Amino acid sequence: MSTAVVPLLRADADALAAQIAEFAAMTESGSGPGVTRMAYTPLERAAHERFAEHMQALGLRVWTDAAGNTFAERAGTDPSLPAIGTGSHLDSVPQAGSYDGIAGVVAAMEIARLLHDQAIEHRHPFRFVAFAAEEGARFGQACTGSRIAGGLTAAADLDDKRDVNGVSIAEAMRSVGIDPAAAETARWRPQDWHAFVELHIEQGSVLDTLGLPIGVIDQISGSTRFALRFQGRASHTGGTPMHLRADALAAAAQVVAAAEALAKDSRHHGTRITVGRLEVSPGSITTIPGECHAYVDVRDIDSARQRETAGELVEIAREIGRSRGVEVSARPMADASPVVLPTWVRDAIVHACQERSLDYRVMPSGASHDTQMISGVVPAGMMFVPSLNHGVSHSPEELTDAADLAVGVDVLTTTLLALDDLARESIENSENPDA
Amino acid sequence: MSTAVVPLLRADADALAAQIAEFAAMTESGSGPGVTRMAYTPLERAAHERFAEHMQALGLRVWTDAAGNTFAERAGTDPSLPAIGTGSHLDSVPQAGSYDGIAGVVAAMEIARLLHDQAIEHRHPFRFVAFAAEEGARFGQACTGSRIAGGLTAAADLDDKRDVNGVSIAEAMRSVGIDPAAAETARWRPQDWHAFVELHIEQGSVLDTLGLPIGVIDQISGSTRFALRFQGRASHTGGTPMHLRADALAAAAQVVAAAEALAKDSRHHGTRITVGRLEVSPGSITTIPGECHAYVDVRDIDSARQRETAGELVEIAREIGRSRGVEVSARPMADASPVVLPTWVRDAIVHACQERSLDYRVMPSGASHDTQMISGVVPAGMMFVPSLNHGVSHSPEELTDAADLAVGVDVLTTTLLALDDLARESIENSENPDA
Repeated sequence: MSTAVVPLLRADADALAAQIAEFAAMTESGSGPGVTRMAYTPLERAAHERFAEHMQALGLRVWTDAAGNTFAERAGTDPSLPAIGTGSHLDSVPQAGSYDGIAGVVAAMEIARLLHDQAIEHRHPFRFVAFAAEEGARFGQACTGSRIAGGLTAAADLDDKRDVNGVSIAEAMRSVGIDPAAAETARWRPQDWHAFVELHIEQGSVLDTLGLPIGVIDQISGSTRFALRFQGRASHTGGTPMHLRADALAAAAQVVAAAEALAKDSRHHGTRITVGRLEVSPGSITTIPGECHAYVDVRDIDSARQRETAGELVEIAREIGRSRGVEVSARPMADASPVVLPTWVRDAIVHACQERSLDYRVMPSGASHDTQMISGVVPAGMMFVPSLNHGVSHSPEELTDAADLAVGVDVLTTTLLALDDLARESIENSENPDA
Repeated sequence: MSTAVVPLLRADADALAAQIAEFAAMTESGSGPGVTRMAYTPLERAAHERFAEHMQALGLRVWTDAAGNTFAERAGTDPSLPAIGTGSHLDSVPQAGSYDGIAGVVAAMEIARLLHDQAIEHRHPFRFVAFAAEEGARFGQACTGSRIAGGLTAAADLDDKRDVNGVSIAEAMRSVGIDPAAAETARWRPQDWHAFVELHIEQGSVLDTLGLPIGVIDQISGSTRFALRFQGRASHTGGTPMHLRADALAAAAQVVAAAEALAKDSRHHGTRITVGRLEVSPGSITTIPGECHAYVDVRDIDSARQRETAGELVEIAREIGRSRGVEVSARPMADASPVVLPTWVRDAIVHACQERSLDYRVMPSGASHDTQMISGVVPAGMMFVPSLNHGVSHSPEELTDAADLAVGVDVLTTTLLALDDLARESIENSENPDA
C-alpha cells in the first residue's frame, strides 16, 4: 500500500464537540436527565434532518431509504466503482448519554467537511450513513435500520415487535412518514458497496485503562442467554440447621461464582459471563429462599465456545443443585452468533493508526452494532474511541473526550482514503480478496 | 426423683387430630388456602373461646387477662403452692398450617382431659394457657401476649406498632373487648409460678431426619439482623471484560457463599446464617449489576458468638468488596439475645422421655416462642415434636403426625407430673434450685 497519496487531514475537536452538543440538545422534553431520542420518533427524524442539512450544505446528494436510514453521497472520480461508507445511528435509549451512535455520525459529518474544505478527491463514491432505530430500548429489537439494510429484517417482521404502548415498529415508521411496506427497497446490494467502517465509543474501559486512543475491532461478540430456575425449600431461618437446608439462593450464589470463575479460566480468554438479574423468593429475612431465578448472558467471539460455555454452565448449575438438594432447570432465551470482520478492512484501520503514529489495540466488540447487521452484504470494519467514566454507557454519565474523538476521526479519515487507494492498488496487484 | 408416683397416662391421637381439625376450620373466609387467624381478631378470640369451653366442661376455672391470654386452672391439693403451666398460642400467620402454636394448646386440652378422666391429683395448681398474638405477621411484633406476661411490653408500647391498615395493637385489642390500658395487670409474678413447659412443633427437620420423637430445648436462639449494601458499577455486559468489572452481584454472591462457609466452619456449630432477601439493580440481563442489597439473619445460642459472627461477616463482606472495587456498607436492623432455659426443667423433660423409653435430642430452638418471653419470670422448659414435609412451617404444607403429637403429649404429661413430684422431693431434700 502506498501511503504517500493519503493527505494528513486533521479533525477539529471544537467542531466535533459543538456537533455533539447540538444533537444532545435534541431530547424529549420532560424525559429527565440525559438524552431521550427514541427510535422512529419525530425527534429522531429531526436529528436525521440536521445530518441531511449539514451534508447538503457541503454539496452532497442526500436521501432517506424505506427503513428511515439517511444517506449522503460524495461523488468519486470513477462513477463505476462501488461505495465506501461510514456512519452510525442517531437514536438513543431513554436518559442516554450524548455519544453512543452520535459519535460515529458526527465523525462522518466532520470527514465530509474536511474533504469538502480541502477539496480532496477520491475514486469511489463516499457514503455517509445515519442508521435509524439502532437501540432496542423501544421495541426490544435492536438495529432495525441496519437489519433491514442487511436483509435480516423484512417488511413482514415489522408488525410483530411493539413498544410499551402497543405501537408496532411498522406503525411507528408510518407515523414519521416512512413506508414499512417498502422495506425491501432499503436492502443493500453487495455490488453497490466496497467497504464500510463504523466509528463508535467503546462503552467499556479497556482503552481508557490502557491509555490507548484506538480500538480496532476484529470480531463482534455473539450472545447466548438463558434463565436458570433453582427450586429449593423455603423454611424458617431459625428452625433449619445449615446441613439440612435446600437454600435456593445459596445454590444460585454458587452458580454466580462458578460463572465468574468459568469466564476467567484459562480456556475462556474473551468470554464474558454475566448474571445481570436475580430474583429471590419469598424474599423474607426470616425465611430460607425456596426459589431463585437467575438470568445469564454468555458472550463470546468464538461461536462454538459460546454455546459450549453456556452448556457447561448449565451442567455446573445442575451439579451444584444436585449437591444441595436444589432442583435446577434451564430455559433458553436468545442466541446470536459472533461476527468475524474481514482482515483486510481491519488492516486498513491498523495501518492508519501506524501512519498517524498512534497506539491501538485489536479487540472484540462485546456489544452489538449496526456494522454487525450489514457485515453480510458489505466488507465492514469497526473502530472504538475511548469511553471515560469507567466506560459507563446508556447513562447521562457516558463521556468521550472531544480530543479523543478527533483522533478517532483522523484515523477513520485516513482509513477511508486508504481503502480508496488500497482498492486501486488491489485492482492493480490483485491483492484485494474482495476484488 | 421418684418415678413410681407418675401414672402412665396415654394421650388419644384421634382426639388430638379432631381438635386440630376443629381449630383448622376456624379460618378467615376468602383468605385462600390454609389457616388465617390473625392476632387480636374476632376469629382468634373465637378460638380462645373454644379452648375456654373445653376447659370449663372439665370443671376448670377459666379467665382471660388484659393481654388476651386465656387461662384454665385445675386446682392442686396444696393451695399454697405456685402454679405449674403449659400451653402455646392460637393465632396464625396468613395461609398458615394447622399446627404452629395449636399443637401446644391442643396438648394442654388433652392433658386436662386425661387428668380429669383419670381423676389424677397434683399438689400444685396446673395452669393451661392459650397465649394471644404470638405471630408477628400482623403487627411486626411477635409474642405480644407473652411479652406482656413477661413484662417485656408495657401498655404504652401498644400504640406504636400498627398493621397494614394502620390499626395499632391497642386499637385491635379494644376492638375485640380487651383493655390495653390494663396490660400491666397481665404481668406474671414470679412467686405465682413454679415452672412452665411449652410443647411446639419443631418447624425444622432435625427430628424427622434423625427419626427421633422428641426434641428437648436447652436454649432459644438469639438473632442479629443487618442489611449489606454493595455499590459496584453498572456497565454493559458485552463492553466490559471480566477483569475490569465491579459487579455488585458477584460480590454479594461471594458473601452468600462466605456466610454459609462461616456458619459451617469448626467454630460455629449451631450458628445459622441466612441471606433470605437479595435485591439486584438495575436487574437487566445486558447490564452488570451496579448495586445489591442483601439482608442477613445470624442466629446463635451463644450471645457473644452471635455478635462476633455478625461482625466477622461484615468484615468479610468489606474485604470481598475491597478486592473487587465494590463499596460495601452495613446497616444494623435488629438484635435479640439468646435465652438459656434452666437445666432442672429440661432434666424433667429428659427423664420423662427416659421413663417412656423414648429417644430424644437436646437441641436449641432456632425460632422464637412464647416461652422465650416468660422465661424471665418463670423457670421454663420447651419440647418439640417432629415436623414432617422437611419441616416446612408458616405454610399449608405444615404437617405433624397425630401419633407423634400424642407421644409428645405423653412426655409432657409425665414432665408436668414429675415437676409436681420433683417439687415435693426438692422441698424435702432442698435439691430444687428454684425452691
